[in-house]
Amino acid sequence: MAIGKLQAKEIRLASRPQGEPSAENFELATVDLPELQPGQVLVRNAFFSVDPYMRGRMNEGKSYVPPFAVGKVLDGAAIGQVVQSRDAGFPVSTWVQSLCGWRDYFVAPAEQLREIDANLAPASAYLGVLGATGLTAWVGLNDIASVKEGETIFISGGAGAVGSIACQLAKLRGCRVIASAGSAAKVAFLRNQLKVDHAFNYRESDPMEQLQKAAPDGLHVYFDNTAGPQLEAALYAMRNHGRIVMCGAISGYNTPVPGPRNMALIIIRRLRMEGFIVVDHLHRMPTFLGEMIPALRAGKLLHQETAIQGIEQAPGAFISLLRSGDAHMGKLVIRV
Amino acid sequence: MAIGKLQAKEIRLASRPQGEPSAENFELATVDLPELQPGQVLVRNAFFSVDPYMRGRMNEGKSYVPPFAVGKVLDGAAIGQVVQSRDAGFPVSTWVQSLCGWRDYFVAPAEQLREIDANLAPASAYLGVLGATGLTAWVGLNDIASVKEGETIFISGGAGAVGSIACQLAKLRGCRVIASAGSAAKVAFLRNQLKVDHAFNYRESDPMEQLQKAAPDGLHVYFDNTAGPQLEAALYAMRNHGRIVMCGAISGYNTPVPGPRNMALIIIRRLRMEGFIVVDHLHRMPTFLGEMIPALRAGKLLHQETAIQGIEQAPGAFISLLRSGDAHMGKLVIRV
Repeated sequence: MAIGKLQAKEIRLASRPQGEPSAENFELATVDLPELQPGQVLVRNAFFSVDPYMRGRMNEGKSYVPPFAVGKVLDGAAIGQVVQSRDAGFPVSTWVQSLCGWRDYFVAPAEQLREIDANLAPASAYLGVLGATGLTAWVGLNDIASVKEGETIFISGGAGAVGSIACQLAKLRGCRVIASAGSAAKVAFLRNQLKVDHAFNYRESDPMEQLQKAAPDGLHVYFDNTAGPQLEAALYAMRNHGRIVMCGAISGYNTPVPGPRNMALIIIRRLRMEGFIVVDHLHRMPTFLGEMIPALRAGKLLHQETAIQGIEQAPGAFISLLRSGDAHMGKLVIRV
Repeated sequence: MAIGKLQAKEIRLASRPQGEPSAENFELATVDLPELQPGQVLVRNAFFSVDPYMRGRMNEGKSYVPPFAVGKVLDGAAIGQVVQSRDAGFPVSTWVQSLCGWRDYFVAPAEQLREIDANLAPASAYLGVLGATGLTAWVGLNDIASVKEGETIFISGGAGAVGSIACQLAKLRGCRVIASAGSAAKVAFLRNQLKVDHAFNYRESDPMEQLQKAAPDGLHVYFDNTAGPQLEAALYAMRNHGRIVMCGAISGYNTPVPGPRNMALIIIRRLRMEGFIVVDHLHRMPTFLGEMIPALRAGKLLHQETAIQGIEQAPGAFISLLRSGDAHMGKLVIRV
């Protein structure tokens, strides 16, 4: 096979969404792949990640990562296998992690890839519980919130990619865990699979009442994946000197929402609210994996993912993810 | 004079204000003072403090201090002199600090009072630059924000009691200081007396534009005394890893306002937002005074106060304070 003639499919940003994205904002394109240069490899993606934070990159203007360019492929985390190699360190069939998702094949310098051990865990777990998603939950709980045994924590978006891992890690730390989600199936998942202490549907009940009932003595920690009304409810429920981990704000990714009306409680209750981005904490990866891989292999951690088949399904999966729809549980990935 | 027959005037909460307080929410009453018991003193107040945080205590419901009771005197910080004493440690003419403001005379156990040295500074300074007000500014800058030389800081409510001290301390620390206030006279005070680097009127200009102009490279620290639109503007102006000191929220004390629409920036810029209450930090008083008294005596700190004569003026002064009116600059006190 002449590499120069190999083609790849990729999903591009066709136009910038205004508010909620729709199918027209995406396009599936076919591109010719270049011939391999020394030090480069050809990778066939097995899975790529569909993440809420990508919505922010679809807007113009600077964020912590540059915005996606219109007409260009949507970068995202991916796991694949080397199928042709001109780098001795990455022979054919090596499993690699990359930021070259939303396409089926790609050519890249081997030095931009990270080898993963697919014998220790299923390859796709490196996008979820063992990847940036898991590290996000782990850093938020350990380094930002410093959760302690016996504390009460509320995790919004508890059935989501980061939330489902945060719930489990908080339980393993000996916390009392309250979690919310947007559907009955997700709430059942929180109760039955993740074994949280109290789970509720934020769409069908009042988060303020739920927190009052589940945590009459208040919250030590709120792990915020949603912002919006749940942040307001959590502020009312915080104990003095509580910590709020600002991890995600999915309720406002399509259309920014006003902040909570009760921010004066940050003063009155002496709260600390802290935002973080996982890319600042990649140096914690070895410690993180040292804890997570044994826990996963011992069955103490559940790697929950929803894998949707086919690159062309990615835009629809992404749109549904931002609607907090019922189509997925845990980490959402595309199986290429 | 039979002490049992001595009477005192006091300002009581007549009814709980809904939104902005009005004169009807207050009443001036006369009470008989009890006869002095052993260990007690009779104090004549010279000054008492009129503070924005008192608005919160006029509402029902728990805050960090119990709410004021309807029909009872409004407690607040006061400076006075012992006029009769049954405690050897507090002889007649001792200057004392108390939480027995909003009245002219009171009887209290001496152990509830703190002696102050009126030779070191004017007595009323112990309500302002040397009191809880000054400590609030000092703790916010040092212990919460950890300001460093060369940093750029924005202080809203810069001409207010806490703000005017925060501006000066930040200048003494070698910071570049941007401050806002709600009138031309206050802005002139910020520029000419407090010598901040940039001052603006938040009512007559766009805080976002002002911050962009005055701090094109962004803010390291925002010292928030107001919340509301200035908090939103500051969020847009924060640098990565910036710190926001949540000290006051006067824009929402009468009627709570929605939070900023751009709270996702707390994540994107990895910000830390922290609230505090000065009563948690009283152990810092000796270190604080050790720095402040020499600075005040050396003329490096200006004690700016507005003293209004007459206990019956207190309600009107309080109402004006919450309107951020032009009637006062710096610390607002009543001279009894």
